[in-house]
Amino acid sequence: MMSRIACASLRNKIMSAEDAAAQIASGTTIGMSGFTGSGYPKAVPLALARQIEAEHAAGRPSKVRIWTGASTGPELDGALAKADGIEFRLPYNSDPIAREKINAGQMDYFDMHLSQVAPMAWQGFLGPLDVAVVEVAGIREDGSLIPSSSVGNNKTWLDRAERVILEVNSWQNAALEGMHDIYYGTALPPNRVPIPLTRADQRIGETWFRCDPAKIVGIVETEAPDRNLPFSPPDETAHAIAGHLLEFLKHEVAKGRLPASLLPIQSGVGNIANAVLTGLVDSPFEDMTAYTEVIQDGMIDLLDAGKLRMASATAFSLSPEAAARLNADMNRYRDRMILRPQEISNHPEIIRRLGCIAMNGLIEADIYGAVNSTHLMGSRIQNGIGGSGDFARNAYISIFVTPSTAKGGRISAIVPQASHVDHISQDVQVIVTEQGLADLRGLSPKQRAAVIIENCAHPDYRPGLADYFARAREGSYGQQSPTLLKEALSWHQRFVETGSMLP
Amino acid sequence: MMSRIACASLRNKIMSAEDAAAQIASGTTIGMSGFTGSGYPKAVPLALARQIEAEHAAGRPSKVRIWTGASTGPELDGALAKADGIEFRLPYNSDPIAREKINAGQMDYFDMHLSQVAPMAWQGFLGPLDVAVVEVAGIREDGSLIPSSSVGNNKTWLDRAERVILEVNSWQNAALEGMHDIYYGTALPPNRVPIPLTRADQRIGETWFRCDPAKIVGIVETEAPDRNLPFSPPDETAHAIAGHLLEFLKHEVAKGRLPASLLPIQSGVGNIANAVLTGLVDSPFEDMTAYTEVIQDGMIDLLDAGKLRMASATAFSLSPEAAARLNADMNRYRDRMILRPQEISNHPEIIRRLGCIAMNGLIEADIYGAVNSTHLMGSRIQNGIGGSGDFARNAYISIFVTPSTAKGGRISAIVPQASHVDHISQDVQVIVTEQGLADLRGLSPKQRAAVIIENCAHPDYRPGLADYFARAREGSYGQQSPTLLKEALSWHQRFVETGSMLP
Repeated sequence: MMSRIACASLRNKIMSAEDAAAQIASGTTIGMSGFTGSGYPKAVPLALARQIEAEHAAGRPSKVRIWTGASTGPELDGALAKADGIEFRLPYNSDPIAREKINAGQMDYFDMHLSQVAPMAWQGFLGPLDVAVVEVAGIREDGSLIPSSSVGNNKTWLDRAERVILEVNSWQNAALEGMHDIYYGTALPPNRVPIPLTRADQRIGETWFRCDPAKIVGIVETEAPDRNLPFSPPDETAHAIAGHLLEFLKHEVAKGRLPASLLPIQSGVGNIANAVLTGLVDSPFEDMTAYTEVIQDGMIDLLDAGKLRMASATAFSLSPEAAARLNADMNRYRDRMILRPQEISNHPEIIRRLGCIAMNGLIEADIYGAVNSTHLMGSRIQNGIGGSGDFARNAYISIFVTPSTAKGGRISAIVPQASHVDHISQDVQVIVTEQGLADLRGLSPKQRAAVIIENCAHPDYRPGLADYFARAREGSYGQQSPTLLKEALSWHQRFVETGSMLP
Repeated sequence: MMSRIACASLRNKIMSAEDAAAQIASGTTIGMSGFTGSGYPKAVPLALARQIEAEHAAGRPSKVRIWTGASTGPELDGALAKADGIEFRLPYNSDPIAREKINAGQMDYFDMHLSQVAPMAWQGFLGPLDVAVVEVAGIREDGSLIPSSSVGNNKTWLDRAERVILEVNSWQNAALEGMHDIYYGTALPPNRVPIPLTRADQRIGETWFRCDPAKIVGIVETEAPDRNLPFSPPDETAHAIAGHLLEFLKHEVAKGRLPASLLPIQSGVGNIANAVLTGLVDSPFEDMTAYTEVIQDGMIDLLDAGKLRMASATAFSLSPEAAARLNADMNRYRDRMILRPQEISNHPEIIRRLGCIAMNGLIEADIYGAVNSTHLMGSRIQNGIGGSGDFARNAYISIFVTPSTAKGGRISAIVPQASHVDHISQDVQVIVTEQGLADLRGLSPKQRAAVIIENCAHPDYRPGLADYFARAREGSYGQQSPTLLKEALSWHQRFVETGSMLP
């Protein structure tokens, strides 16, 4: 294989993953690349996990603090969590082993708005950053870095870290070069200026990362695939949700409240979100754009169908099949995709300006429309809030999609009161389940409850919700958002006790 | 008195408040001026209330839908609520009579983010706007309107309403003219562009409102004061809160995380917030600016003390004494104050760019730092979320201040679980009570709980909270945010049953 390291003066920093990891002591804070299983370092974290295991075997405590873009892969979060090597983790995790450690109380996890990670790091609110470990697709002759399949917080980690370790992954397509748009115009207040982005397809930055070569303490060459997981094919529920949503969007266009090419689409990660995107392939909407966090399979389908003109994101989140499709034809796709720092892909300023149509999943919504995206039964974290808050609060229309039940019908996605709140009712304008769509715009809490119960709840749970709501309108302390305090969380309690929310 | 109506062609539209109100039929949606008791219409709403009462006496149903900037005064919300004349109200209310009607389930109230009212009205999500009733300080020769003591959503109401009724209030100081900055650069996507504001003291708009004279169906002359309510003098609790906060700000400056002149200050409305501002008079900070919703007494003190260089807001909220001080010297104050549309004063884009230091009050925070700003015992609305969400989410530092108890110690401001959530824990970085300050930046939920219980809770409630937290770490379904579902809302239930959260 041809070396991806064109900068001669940096070639003497090439070393093994073990030697690179040996420079990371217990207690170190590490900024890792990686976003939704793309572009994360794959060798150094594994070597670090082995090093930590050896320390533990020798009876010495050893843990590190990990910052990333979002979720990574088994070679990073999985291996380090398995080694009991993570003391503290931010800002998003979907790794099953790390999740177990967090929910067992063995790992501290700070679940952050993804747009706020870079600013808060710059503001000094997260403490010092010791080392950056960043995967790149190559190093250019002048020492600038070709970003990989995610951008995430890499610019910030490279700028802020005292030392930098690079992984140069030749599995990544060399034709990725040119797709990225790294904006170097951010600043700390009082020196912040408007971000000059007014269209999803606009470039405002540079193609490469800058990196002070003096900070680079190791370069590791790898050839390893991203964690590309298959999407489930859309089932009947997903089709029904997509159908309700498409009807709504068509209705909004007919009413003149949306342009015929819609507004830039944001879509959360997951099977339902992907099904909605796939549903847009057969929609009447043309010349669409996406301004979102991740490019997933459905976006590739929309591009191929000629429906989507341009997709802006911070990372890929593809099935192995879609990744192969992309890699086989990267030169063509490259001009129709832009990967940006997550500070920009998720920036409130831009999301509000562009008027994104936000579509995100949820764990549960209560009858007033407050949404829990993160905590099962109020306490057990699933993944994290991710960028859903950035988009939902600032969107033109904020839509949440979910099947009306989970766990084979034993959990209702509509509950009397959310056991944890990530999105307050003001940030939730539309809820869609396979049962139907609740358009909550301009409604008071009691008006919202009537529509959510009627349109979104599963028939198995609808009578229970209607009964709760009716009794709350009699017995509540106040009548703005009627609540029966003794019963508000009783459905969750019943699930914990019996394994089902059903009475 | 000299007429404030310099436009000759409009003088024939002068009429009585009764004649103006007679043009407002039952079912009408009215966009009223007014923000925190400033600049609301004072004659037409009273006449409308009498008209509605007469209809009711005649056995005819009569109700209207009211949109405003924020809270108004007894002549508007009070009179119309008393007449049972409000079917639906947005986006913020603090009127006691309206509050009772809402909490009795007799009035629908949609409590909105204040920055989102104008955009959502333009997007068509709130339905059509039939009539605007707007107080102005005068009408110029060319028909442009001199704004009054609040700007609020007036620009949007004047632009969007089918018909316009003006109240020209000669009680308002004529020297207000020139203080306002009405930005006419907003648009609907895909045509939105960056808002060119990079400093709190910058002007980007026009001094007057434009208004199509053909839409004006009535002009009512008034001479009536704003609802200026006295602030309570700061008590020991307020002094203690201000003291902790000043120590924190000094510490942040010393650490280099804040400039010596701080960053633009936002302060919520109320006695505690006002005490904090007053505390800044004796601080070492110089050359400060404010970018906030309302200019209250403490801001005037800071201006007079030469500490504050410029205050940008959308309205005044003054005591009668401070209003008199301001009016006596308006020519001097005018150049150091800017009143803007609330869409701009509260815009996420600007708040994040300027890096505001947000200071807001709360009703309760839970041990993980989720904040309830609106609903007593989860159901009874106090006022509304107002602009607190706009500022807390986008601030450089988001601070919440509160006494640790309310109702003579019978309510704890720190509870196991918030009974309603307005600000998720990610948007709450610092909590201050008279007991101390919890710096929550960069902490996981369990780390936050330890600090909040230790630093902020009242000693009467601290052992109960510590006990709950300890048991939740044993018995919770998951350990990210340990929760005992059966007990989470039990403190609120106890208050409802016994009048106290104390066991």
